[in-house]
Amino acid sequence: MLKTISVTQENTCLSLCDRYQQVRQLSQQLCQPLATEDYAIQSMPDVSPPKWHLAHTTWFFETFLLVPYLKGYELFHPKFGYLFNSYYEAVGERHPRAQRGLLSRPTVAEVYQYRDYVDAGMRSLMLEISGNSDLESLITLGLHHEQQHQELLLTDIKHILGMNPLRPAYLQNPLSAISKFPENREKWLDYPGGLQAIGHQNREFAFDNESPRHQVYLQDYYLASRLVTNGEYLEFIEAGGYNKPEYWLAEGWTTIQAEKWFAPFYWEKIDGVWWIMTLYGMQPLNENEPVCHVSFYEADAYASFRGLRLPTEVEWEVAASSVPIKGNFVETGRLHPTVASGVTRPDQMFGDVWEWTQSAYLPYPGFEVADGAIGEYNGKFMCNQMVLRGGSCATSINHIRSTYRNFFPPSARWQFTGIRLAKY
Amino acid sequence: MLKTISVTQENTCLSLCDRYQQVRQLSQQLCQPLATEDYAIQSMPDVSPPKWHLAHTTWFFETFLLVPYLKGYELFHPKFGYLFNSYYEAVGERHPRAQRGLLSRPTVAEVYQYRDYVDAGMRSLMLEISGNSDLESLITLGLHHEQQHQELLLTDIKHILGMNPLRPAYLQNPLSAISKFPENREKWLDYPGGLQAIGHQNREFAFDNESPRHQVYLQDYYLASRLVTNGEYLEFIEAGGYNKPEYWLAEGWTTIQAEKWFAPFYWEKIDGVWWIMTLYGMQPLNENEPVCHVSFYEADAYASFRGLRLPTEVEWEVAASSVPIKGNFVETGRLHPTVASGVTRPDQMFGDVWEWTQSAYLPYPGFEVADGAIGEYNGKFMCNQMVLRGGSCATSINHIRSTYRNFFPPSARWQFTGIRLAKY
Amino acid sequence: MLKTISVTQENTCLSLCDRYQQVRQLSQQLCQPLATEDYAIQSMPDVSPPKWHLAHTTWFFETFLLVPYLKGYELFHPKFGYLFNSYYEAVGERHPRAQRGLLSRPTVAEVYQYRDYVDAGMRSLMLEISGNSDLESLITLGLHHEQQHQELLLTDIKHILGMNPLRPAYLQNPLSAISKFPENREKWLDYPGGLQAIGHQNREFAFDNESPRHQVYLQDYYLASRLVTNGEYLEFIEAGGYNKPEYWLAEGWTTIQAEKWFAPFYWEKIDGVWWIMTLYGMQPLNENEPVCHVSFYEADAYASFRGLRLPTEVEWEVAASSVPIKGNFVETGRLHPTVASGVTRPDQMFGDVWEWTQSAYLPYPGFEVADGAIGEYNGKFMCNQMVLRGGSCATSINHIRSTYRNFFPPSARWQFTGIRLAKY
Amino acid sequence: MLKTISVTQENTCLSLCDRYQQVRQLSQQLCQPLATEDYAIQSMPDVSPPKWHLAHTTWFFETFLLVPYLKGYELFHPKFGYLFNSYYEAVGERHPRAQRGLLSRPTVAEVYQYRDYVDAGMRSLMLEISGNSDLESLITLGLHHEQQHQELLLTDIKHILGMNPLRPAYLQNPLSAISKFPENREKWLDYPGGLQAIGHQNREFAFDNESPRHQVYLQDYYLASRLVTNGEYLEFIEAGGYNKPEYWLAEGWTTIQAEKWFAPFYWEKIDGVWWIMTLYGMQPLNENEPVCHVSFYEADAYASFRGLRLPTEVEWEVAASSVPIKGNFVETGRLHPTVASGVTRPDQMFGDVWEWTQSAYLPYPGFEVADGAIGEYNGKFMCNQMVLRGGSCATSINHIRSTYRNFFPPSARWQFTGIRLAKY
Repeated sequence: MLKTISVTQENTCLSLCDRYQQVRQLSQQLCQPLATEDYAIQSMPDVSPPKWHLAHTTWFFETFLLVPYLKGYELFHPKFGYLFNSYYEAVGERHPRAQRGLLSRPTVAEVYQYRDYVDAGMRSLMLEISGNSDLESLITLGLHHEQQHQELLLTDIKHILGMNPLRPAYLQNPLSAISKFPENREKWLDYPGGLQAIGHQNREFAFDNESPRHQVYLQDYYLASRLVTNGEYLEFIEAGGYNKPEYWLAEGWTTIQAEKWFAPFYWEKIDGVWWIMTLYGMQPLNENEPVCHVSFYEADAYASFRGLRLPTEVEWEVAASSVPIKGNFVETGRLHPTVASGVTRPDQMFGDVWEWTQSAYLPYPGFEVADGAIGEYNGKFMCNQMVLRGGSCATSINHIRSTYRNFFPPSARWQFTGIRLAKY
Repeated sequence: MLKTISVTQENTCLSLCDRYQQVRQLSQQLCQPLATEDYAIQSMPDVSPPKWHLAHTTWFFETFLLVPYLKGYELFHPKFGYLFNSYYEAVGERHPRAQRGLLSRPTVAEVYQYRDYVDAGMRSLMLEISGNSDLESLITLGLHHEQQHQELLLTDIKHILGMNPLRPAYLQNPLSAISKFPENREKWLDYPGGLQAIGHQNREFAFDNESPRHQVYLQDYYLASRLVTNGEYLEFIEAGGYNKPEYWLAEGWTTIQAEKWFAPFYWEKIDGVWWIMTLYGMQPLNENEPVCHVSFYEADAYASFRGLRLPTEVEWEVAASSVPIKGNFVETGRLHPTVASGVTRPDQMFGDVWEWTQSAYLPYPGFEVADGAIGEYNGKFMCNQMVLRGGSCATSINHIRSTYRNFFPPSARWQFTGIRLAKY
Repeated sequence: MLKTISVTQENTCLSLCDRYQQVRQLSQQLCQPLATEDYAIQSMPDVSPPKWHLAHTTWFFETFLLVPYLKGYELFHPKFGYLFNSYYEAVGERHPRAQRGLLSRPTVAEVYQYRDYVDAGMRSLMLEISGNSDLESLITLGLHHEQQHQELLLTDIKHILGMNPLRPAYLQNPLSAISKFPENREKWLDYPGGLQAIGHQNREFAFDNESPRHQVYLQDYYLASRLVTNGEYLEFIEAGGYNKPEYWLAEGWTTIQAEKWFAPFYWEKIDGVWWIMTLYGMQPLNENEPVCHVSFYEADAYASFRGLRLPTEVEWEVAASSVPIKGNFVETGRLHPTVASGVTRPDQMFGDVWEWTQSAYLPYPGFEVADGAIGEYNGKFMCNQMVLRGGSCATSINHIRSTYRNFFPPSARWQFTGIRLAKY
Repeated sequence: MLKTISVTQENTCLSLCDRYQQVRQLSQQLCQPLATEDYAIQSMPDVSPPKWHLAHTTWFFETFLLVPYLKGYELFHPKFGYLFNSYYEAVGERHPRAQRGLLSRPTVAEVYQYRDYVDAGMRSLMLEISGNSDLESLITLGLHHEQQHQELLLTDIKHILGMNPLRPAYLQNPLSAISKFPENREKWLDYPGGLQAIGHQNREFAFDNESPRHQVYLQDYYLASRLVTNGEYLEFIEAGGYNKPEYWLAEGWTTIQAEKWFAPFYWEKIDGVWWIMTLYGMQPLNENEPVCHVSFYEADAYASFRGLRLPTEVEWEVAASSVPIKGNFVETGRLHPTVASGVTRPDQMFGDVWEWTQSAYLPYPGFEVADGAIGEYNGKFMCNQMVLRGGSCATSINHIRSTYRNFFPPSARWQFTGIRLAKY
């Protein structure tokens, strides 16, 4: 059903209007396989109902573009600002996050009407403001914001269906098997240390948290040529990894005890055989695929078990900066990590799964928060989160960069998150 | 929309099959005004999603009638037993109650298919077993069980819509105003004490908790001629009732402090004016209507404020036993309490709102629990609950009796619950 | 150490002043075996630190007697009212109950000074008011209040020491073994039904909740001749009683699942052998002693397991009214239940363990709450509690009556609570 | 009372045995002002009862030195390992942290006996092992461990007394007023960037988390010449800082809303005047003293309010490496921050209050965890904590270094924590 996605990868040459159209359309396309009932569920506090994502991304354009800049614009509904603001304190009161799943209204149909109404407004606005680079930047930000929510849409849908005892599938076509996988263990790629620079530097769009570009001093280091696989992670499980505190950060150990974690999220052992929940429903565990849906705690513990470590975000970015951006992104329609190619160069750096780093999410030297509500976008989350790099099978290819900094609390598991090892 | 309900009140002469048809149909009729999205919401742990009620009442017939007694019956779905068992421990594992709102699947359409499938099975079974009084009793129990869930359907729908910041209406027609209300205060009806008998005694259907009929010794007592009104309860609020611990049971005081209660549930003061949420959406408070959606704590505190008390369930039943069963039931389609008629005899004893008594829900002398899962129906809840009597505007007229014992924890407010005063 | 207690059992002939002296002294005598550190611990929210009991009972006399009635009385400390008020809303703000164990100050020595100071004031007051029966009644209430706290002192000390992994003993002398126990099962004592009266009727002191005396109508019934023993209760455990929902009230089943209860409180199975924590430290389980430290849920489940039931408080009182008040009370110094005597008449009706009844704690017909703070004594707890009768090995003999109504929530286990069976 | 402390600051020339004696003695000296009752209180989960600190530091020597290395050593008590292990998973089960305040036993006297017993053992061991540098290092680690607990002893005692409504004083002597304070605002000290090195490098004792020394690249930066004062922080409060989300990290904003924070910890506004709880009891707020008992969230929000930022730990260490270690440490006996000296060079870098940095607590490049239980000392906490630098008025002068990395979660406020500003 999702095979029809055909985002042009060189879309920077597209007009803003076309890009708007394309991004907005993908959100709705991703929801096509859903039943009406699926749109309203919040299966845990971190998850938002799909219709909330559809409405919230629309509210962003309405609030930051149409209300201030489109003459004569009238709000679609006076209460939608209250319902669909996520966390922008500067924009006023909002519905409590944990209660997003208690809202049967507005209905799905009304949310689609809201999207159409705002899209019409945006088309008018984009015609009017052509060449106004500040507003175009703001629209571009709104599109990247929506692309972030597209990834959340997929991970949240997976959670909503995965928590259902019926384990329904989102995709009806079979998950294509990919059997190639030549090597037994990762290879080690050698990177020289010394003074390096990281951070965003060109005129393309990037989030504020990627700037300023700045120098850093690095030790020599090695990165694994590919991601850790399910089969490798299984060795950790079978060696009693979840019962041995010596591998775990104190908070990690407390968490796996409290939450009774015994394997990555979505793994189930049924009659002695490991299965995993996927967007294709329940599938037997493929040992060659990258391990996915692990927390930072598990990534770190696995590295300890191996006597290795996770890369820092600096090490990752320096290595990634010379790697072309291609891989298993949302555009492939697979929506599931795939096996490594077996090449002896950095493989799977982009796409497949977000890679946990050992770097806390902190401001770069000289980071400045933007003024107003938009300034709440990134900076205010710089506490108690870890950086992830590289994008996943649910990320749009034109959304990712080697400088892109994703971040989640160390306990988060419902995103497509995995492990690449490092060592000195 | 609900005006088309035309349940014959003398339906005891109906065949079982007709009664089955009628009761099952009403459940679906009550859901007609819902949007698909409304069916899956659980707005608090006590509330069940409407589709859960539709499926659970169906599961009852499937589990206790079709599986054991209909030859060749095949389950509609192997997991529905897990999903739609409410609390019958003897029937096996079940989905956690507080997670009923996390289930987008089965869809509403699938739940209706489940109902059709089971109804077809039940028609076959009823033909086969005609005259088997044990099975007919069990079916009758299933129908009364479904009638209880019809009341919950309405109170849960009210809660689902009432918690939504959009405050949507379930009924689109206007709430008809009824202005008659001749008296200022309740009148007092005098009842002699002495030896009396309460409990069920004839061959009609009744729940096990209404038996055995037994003698009790009563003091002389008075009951108020009618229910306490919104206007009277407002006097309590305006006299600072929610800030004065002397009126409250210790648990009640703790509860109103912790929950920040300041008025009955569904009351909102907007710009200095009281409004209440109803199935017709937000309505201005009508001071002549009976106060509704109060907890036992509030009912008891109001009685203390008046220097009076709540009746015992014995006093209520003795008084009610000579009152004809008529009033504002679900069949009127009003679905909202209405004002008293002003007569000087027990008024509003049946219908309008359930009346809190000062009696804890306990077994009658000689009460016996039935064998098997059906025995879990009533007896196991005889702890920390208070008895309510008389039915409400959401109750079916052929479901209620003067001996009927409803019960809820003293903090429950989302049912149609109100107050009748008593004194010695 | 407690052997020196020698309360005269006919102390009604004592002067008020002597009774005051005697009761106040016993509180301190009960604390003699404590280390200073034991006085300040709150091992669960229901428990109060021993020094809190010593201070709170003193605060009662200071607040309700000395402040209003002793001319020129000055408060011992301006903040003690805040610290040592238990729940009297009318007397003002108070320290949160669950935080009583966070107070190292006032020190134990200061609390004893507070007692001495108030006792001196009370001696002056008692001389002044001789013959003022209202104040004498209030003092008598204060003494009975202190006797209630003496029982709590013992059960709280038991809990404080029992939760300590070192399991220290409160009493250093050995627990005397009592081996007599002639019978295998309880005998059944037959009581005729009909109109009976219960409630307090003479001029002796009684709490307000025992009045007014009133008529009740009873079925014929049987009471067990003695309490259920540890050995009998062990049969229930060994028959899987804690794993079979059919024996349990719904709330009871939820509670034992959530709390992981598998036996009465203070029972521990060590290397396959049952031990119980006592005020003598850990002791092997004596199967002939009455089972103790069970909740109402467990008492009710045990009765279900036996196909029997608990008595109502009316049945118990009618039977107890002709039984002389003697038994294993605090004055024996044993502070632990003892085995039945084997006689064929109501045995162990008083002392040993409080007996759970199947009666919820509710007002008697015509019950009136006293004015002012004293009126908060009993009435406001009449919700979600069950009645217990007969006193325990931690009760003073001159504190108990056949009409005495103790009450606790159905989940309470840290009191000396046990089981007497009944049937029709 | 604490004036008698006279730790020699050049104690590196002391023999190990003398240093052992000196450190162990200080722990007991710090407890001298306590009442017996104060030793057992745990006023919040982060706080440990003073007697627990006394016993836990002793358990460290018993477990890691005496048991493995002192021939014939017998445990003081078989259960003390269970009671006084803090978090060493490798050493076995332990008493739950949040229940440390439920233990009246062992008594304070028994804990002091335990200390004497272990001290005697340690004296024997130290004689035996003279010259064994591995064991001497382990003993030195144990002494630094005890010094850390000495700081916690003081902050926990302050919390225990500060939460008590009586607000008792720990120190009976008056808090000496220090009035000098010449400047209105901090001055800015200029530091050049470029390649720098941080981390421990000599043969003196240091914790594993301070190594390895490594190069870092820095921008040019400024540090404030002194700490932020109470008066300056008051400007933030009076400007509505606690009500303006724009100054706060998202987690900080959530925390101050949930916890209802309105000022630093221990601040109270009484009749319009600000007071603070100190170890001298309640004292009027001195606007010239450094602000203390702020969380990282508050430190960061204050910096935002000023348009400035917190230093990184690298910036702090580079600046501190040339500053002599002197200041207001525990040895002054003041136990309270004091005002700046007014000099135009880094002032208050050591002592007074720990300074929050904007650096998350993470491993240095090449950090290696030690083997065995000792390896659990630091590394396993490297998640969701922020680094603090410089020591406080509760730190021993011979415990601190410019490379010393303290760490606490961003919400911690009960330590002596304050703010130094930075900018580019």
